[in-house]
Amino acid sequence: MSSGTTPPAFDPKNMPFRRLGPTGLRVPLFSLGGWLTYGGSISGDPVKEIIKTAFDAGINMFDTAEGYASGKSEIEMGRVVRELGLRRTDLVISTKIYWGPKGGPNGNGLSRKHIIEGTKESLERLGLDYVDVIFAHRPDSTVPMEEIVRAFNFVIEKGWAFYWATSEWSARDIEEAYHVAEKLNLIAPIAEQCQHHMFHRERPEKEYLPLYKKYGLGTTTWSSLAGGLLTGKYNDGIPEGSRFKSTPQFYKDIVEKKPEGLEKIRKVKELTKFAQEELQTTPATLALAWVARQPNTSTVILGATSVEQLKENLKAVELVPKLTDEVLEKIERILDNKPAPIDTYSRLALDPLGRL
Amino acid sequence: MSSGTTPPAFDPKNMPFRRLGPTGLRVPLFSLGGWLTYGGSISGDPVKEIIKTAFDAGINMFDTAEGYASGKSEIEMGRVVRELGLRRTDLVISTKIYWGPKGGPNGNGLSRKHIIEGTKESLERLGLDYVDVIFAHRPDSTVPMEEIVRAFNFVIEKGWAFYWATSEWSARDIEEAYHVAEKLNLIAPIAEQCQHHMFHRERPEKEYLPLYKKYGLGTTTWSSLAGGLLTGKYNDGIPEGSRFKSTPQFYKDIVEKKPEGLEKIRKVKELTKFAQEELQTTPATLALAWVARQPNTSTVILGATSVEQLKENLKAVELVPKLTDEVLEKIERILDNKPAPIDTYSRLALDPLGRL
Amino acid sequence: MSSGTTPPAFDPKNMPFRRLGPTGLRVPLFSLGGWLTYGGSISGDPVKEIIKTAFDAGINMFDTAEGYASGKSEIEMGRVVRELGLRRTDLVISTKIYWGPKGGPNGNGLSRKHIIEGTKESLERLGLDYVDVIFAHRPDSTVPMEEIVRAFNFVIEKGWAFYWATSEWSARDIEEAYHVAEKLNLIAPIAEQCQHHMFHRERPEKEYLPLYKKYGLGTTTWSSLAGGLLTGKYNDGIPEGSRFKSTPQFYKDIVEKKPEGLEKIRKVKELTKFAQEELQTTPATLALAWVARQPNTSTVILGATSVEQLKENLKAVELVPKLTDEVLEKIERILDNKPAPIDTYSRLALDPLGRL
Amino acid sequence: MSSGTTPPAFDPKNMPFRRLGPTGLRVPLFSLGGWLTYGGSISGDPVKEIIKTAFDAGINMFDTAEGYASGKSEIEMGRVVRELGLRRTDLVISTKIYWGPKGGPNGNGLSRKHIIEGTKESLERLGLDYVDVIFAHRPDSTVPMEEIVRAFNFVIEKGWAFYWATSEWSARDIEEAYHVAEKLNLIAPIAEQCQHHMFHRERPEKEYLPLYKKYGLGTTTWSSLAGGLLTGKYNDGIPEGSRFKSTPQFYKDIVEKKPEGLEKIRKVKELTKFAQEELQTTPATLALAWVARQPNTSTVILGATSVEQLKENLKAVELVPKLTDEVLEKIERILDNKPAPIDTYSRLALDPLGRL
Repeated sequence: MSSGTTPPAFDPKNMPFRRLGPTGLRVPLFSLGGWLTYGGSISGDPVKEIIKTAFDAGINMFDTAEGYASGKSEIEMGRVVRELGLRRTDLVISTKIYWGPKGGPNGNGLSRKHIIEGTKESLERLGLDYVDVIFAHRPDSTVPMEEIVRAFNFVIEKGWAFYWATSEWSARDIEEAYHVAEKLNLIAPIAEQCQHHMFHRERPEKEYLPLYKKYGLGTTTWSSLAGGLLTGKYNDGIPEGSRFKSTPQFYKDIVEKKPEGLEKIRKVKELTKFAQEELQTTPATLALAWVARQPNTSTVILGATSVEQLKENLKAVELVPKLTDEVLEKIERILDNKPAPIDTYSRLALDPLGRL
Repeated sequence: MSSGTTPPAFDPKNMPFRRLGPTGLRVPLFSLGGWLTYGGSISGDPVKEIIKTAFDAGINMFDTAEGYASGKSEIEMGRVVRELGLRRTDLVISTKIYWGPKGGPNGNGLSRKHIIEGTKESLERLGLDYVDVIFAHRPDSTVPMEEIVRAFNFVIEKGWAFYWATSEWSARDIEEAYHVAEKLNLIAPIAEQCQHHMFHRERPEKEYLPLYKKYGLGTTTWSSLAGGLLTGKYNDGIPEGSRFKSTPQFYKDIVEKKPEGLEKIRKVKELTKFAQEELQTTPATLALAWVARQPNTSTVILGATSVEQLKENLKAVELVPKLTDEVLEKIERILDNKPAPIDTYSRLALDPLGRL
Repeated sequence: MSSGTTPPAFDPKNMPFRRLGPTGLRVPLFSLGGWLTYGGSISGDPVKEIIKTAFDAGINMFDTAEGYASGKSEIEMGRVVRELGLRRTDLVISTKIYWGPKGGPNGNGLSRKHIIEGTKESLERLGLDYVDVIFAHRPDSTVPMEEIVRAFNFVIEKGWAFYWATSEWSARDIEEAYHVAEKLNLIAPIAEQCQHHMFHRERPEKEYLPLYKKYGLGTTTWSSLAGGLLTGKYNDGIPEGSRFKSTPQFYKDIVEKKPEGLEKIRKVKELTKFAQEELQTTPATLALAWVARQPNTSTVILGATSVEQLKENLKAVELVPKLTDEVLEKIERILDNKPAPIDTYSRLALDPLGRL
Repeated sequence: MSSGTTPPAFDPKNMPFRRLGPTGLRVPLFSLGGWLTYGGSISGDPVKEIIKTAFDAGINMFDTAEGYASGKSEIEMGRVVRELGLRRTDLVISTKIYWGPKGGPNGNGLSRKHIIEGTKESLERLGLDYVDVIFAHRPDSTVPMEEIVRAFNFVIEKGWAFYWATSEWSARDIEEAYHVAEKLNLIAPIAEQCQHHMFHRERPEKEYLPLYKKYGLGTTTWSSLAGGLLTGKYNDGIPEGSRFKSTPQFYKDIVEKKPEGLEKIRKVKELTKFAQEELQTTPATLALAWVARQPNTSTVILGATSVEQLKENLKAVELVPKLTDEVLEKIERILDNKPAPIDTYSRLALDPLGRL
């Protein structure tokens, strides 16, 4: 990663930093994800410009996965970081193991074989000796938790990662990982990379609640814009051939104009109005700042396809402190979907005083 | 293992895959063993053709041992896999430690010295950095179980293998390995490579039963054809100089025409008739499919000396789904040797309701 | 570290050696620190002369830190040790991790990321494969103790250090580290690098008392001369622009001629007289020997900016045996600041007989 | 260790092999020590001839120490093994750490620093990647047992040795090592290298008894000939300048013709007569076979200064089976120094039935 010239020192600018869960690792409130940026929708030097812009704006955390664009996301990220001559210690780099780009019966999931082979191949594509955090990109109920925890512990003991974490695991899965780690005296996961946006709140805001309290679990959230829905660009209908339309599960009821779908569009319109009139911003900026403002968010992963889009997203950094309790309350009234308190999970329900 | 051209991607075709015991590792229902194939009975490029044929038929697991043909089996397998340019992650490679090809007072068995020295030399012969599974080829009652488990754990922590397993160990030996692993917080074995065919059923179908239930133990079975007996080729008498005749223990009573031996020949004749008339197949294909169809079989190791023989064996893949419960029942009536339920082993016997 | 000629064998001369806390490591009663010596106040070959003089006088322990002169202290020490051709096994080299020279959100503190990255970069600057002792240069309350202990254990298991220790940690912090290490079966810290001089006694002489008894904690003390105050050079007033004046916290009340400050000056004058008249030495030599004479001091770290100053300091070696109980009692009467016995900490207070 | 030609396969001839304590490692009943052979008393190619002669006679275990001839013993042994082209797996090589050849405050003993630095330098001198067994050459009461056990465990986990053991430790020391290893889940020592001959019996035949029973401790014994006394060569008086005379402690009372000394000479004379008349052998051969015949001896380390002497010693191999219980009983009558049974140590004394 060394170049002939002195590498540019990282300047966090006005970017706030938070500890990633129960660790000493500092992550920027907004980080850059590799899903849209690298290899996937775009290619070539735009990637370099986007990463440079992010770094110059105080973003030093870059997230990717072995499964993004069949490994090309990792290759591109590694290449750019090298070409920009960024110092490794200035960066927080994370990748995720689950969907190996080569496929095959043992090329996916969380077997010891794939966790170790996958990590080695990710590091090769990245051109790095280690990542800071390695995520299990999904749970894998076909593998005993002991095998999973032992394998990630092996990765950490080898020096290939400093921490391991989960992505889209249920609270029960994460809890089991903690128990297994404690029982076997191994290293426990530190964070969850979970979907979190104004229309996806149950898991991060309710299901994980006991984990935040008991273990200090951190979160690295994705999909803040609900696949574009929260930018307001579908307020007047869905254009043919848009990425939005082709994503079936979440938006089916919108495309098919079912009541639940129309209700979401209605709320986005209201949020758009609120953002513009009360906060002089866009609904997209508001949606990003809103996730960042949640009490258990460690970092909000941004997914930008162009420098312009990234710069647009970065406006959220300024908006976060303006989201006062009063403003948040008004947003809740528009959304009207705040998860009810837990009453059946963990020890919370057993304590009439609400203490953990 | 890289070559100038893109390696051929593995295509499992219609091969079923199962988890190997309590792990996330996927193994094909039929795998290829190195006992007959490599170095031993044949040599040169036939090995390459056999492995290529197996790979093209959906077999990605290759088993060998330091003791096969004095290490030549490992050398040949490594050479062929390299020459075929197969991707390491596509393969499940296993070897077995016990009979070191060099011999000597410390060149055999399961001492820490031989497990570590033997594994290093096996990897050298194979030309690999690691195998997927390393087996203890036999139990070694002269070595404390703690030394054995610690040594295999060392091999795994060094990254030389992902899993370790046993071969031809008694249930009591395996149970002790589990207990030692649990007590010392080390990695336990995951599978047993055991002899299993229509005339060798007590151990895999009865003795190991509690281990399947308690630990999810997997099996990689060998000798499905009972050394050729179940092909029916000895139905009309044993030719002079055949391999069969020179194997003393198991077939002694057949060669010597003792009642038990003649009874076996009678059953093979009946099975031959049943296979041909009711299933339009050969007794060999039936014998292979029958082992694969057993509930605790992870993979059936095939031993082929020619491409033709391998292709013949692979017909069993199609036969397995045709072995319905009704068909199995008819076979049991012919064999008349189903092991009686356990009544003295482990906790099974203590629970009148048959629960574990 | 090898050169063409035979390296000079280390000769301890009349330097006493003590075990460093509860370990088998032997350290000289006086060692050389890198704070003033290397890179900081001076540069070039004086460093070499100072280290050579120390080594020839029986000092084989050299202490530095990643934070001293932005890493230059480590670079200089490594260079000189190499150029002098000293044998690695003859030396005890320690460095400290906390203030990484590159800064940044993750370039400081005791996160797993910084402990591991920092140690690797320290070793690179030193040009060594390992140090003997690695210190946590300060406590870091933002990082869970489990993460800190696991990371230092990782450093030791990698072979990058033989022991780890703390610097300026509270007794409670150290106690927690011991408990975590014991709970997780990891390696505990062995020593504290603490400020200890005639006007800074509470922590080393009172707060740590239970740790000396319970864990055999060692100490590597610094600032024996109280930043120059105990040399007596400020007995007649503080010159403009002196380093002393620019250090605000400790000496503020002296510079501002508050009663507490004037009292200190008065005591130094008395000590000067006592040193000269009763011991035929200087107050500086007395101050150094006095710390070395304390019962729980493992090594007193000297900070010399010139060969002359070092030689002056080394006179303390001869003075130590002359500090009899009677002499110490007279000094106590001058200082009049001996910490009172602990009455609230740990089990000491619970035992009316004063046993631990 | 590879040469152009095929290395000579080891042939154990008629040498018996025993397990080394509670391990799977097989050691020859007689092994070769480096104290007299290499570097010390002789030099050059005699070493090669002696090692070759030993290997050809079925001796594949060679013992040395960092402290033998200031490291030259290790250098010579490594050179010869290389030049003879012996296969590493055929050999059992042991060395011992305690008296580092370079000396210095941290160049001796059992600190973590010296165990690790010493082992690395021993392996360098030997030109090997690992030894089979590494011994703590003496106990070190200045180092906590936890540090010692952790350091040897580190050496084993690094792959630098398969087993660790002790030399001249008291039963209490060894027992503590076992307890610490068990408490911390680390690897325990497996054997003791102890002095054992007809006039030194208390420790190996009495003090260690509970350790043989409880832990299966092995022994690698040295000084079978009592420094030459048991060869009978001093039966007629001690020549001036002999090595014997210069060893003060053990033989002082002989040289000074004290009653205890004269009594020993008397017994040697009787043994000489017994050996010649009843066994047609020499007292030296008898003394060697007698130690080998003891129930808890794993291997008797021979120290030969010439091929002739080694060949003479090797006659003991043939004598061992001739030492029937009846013959042993007669020898006991001559020696009249059989240690009394333990009555105060360990649990033995607590069990009136003599069970452990």
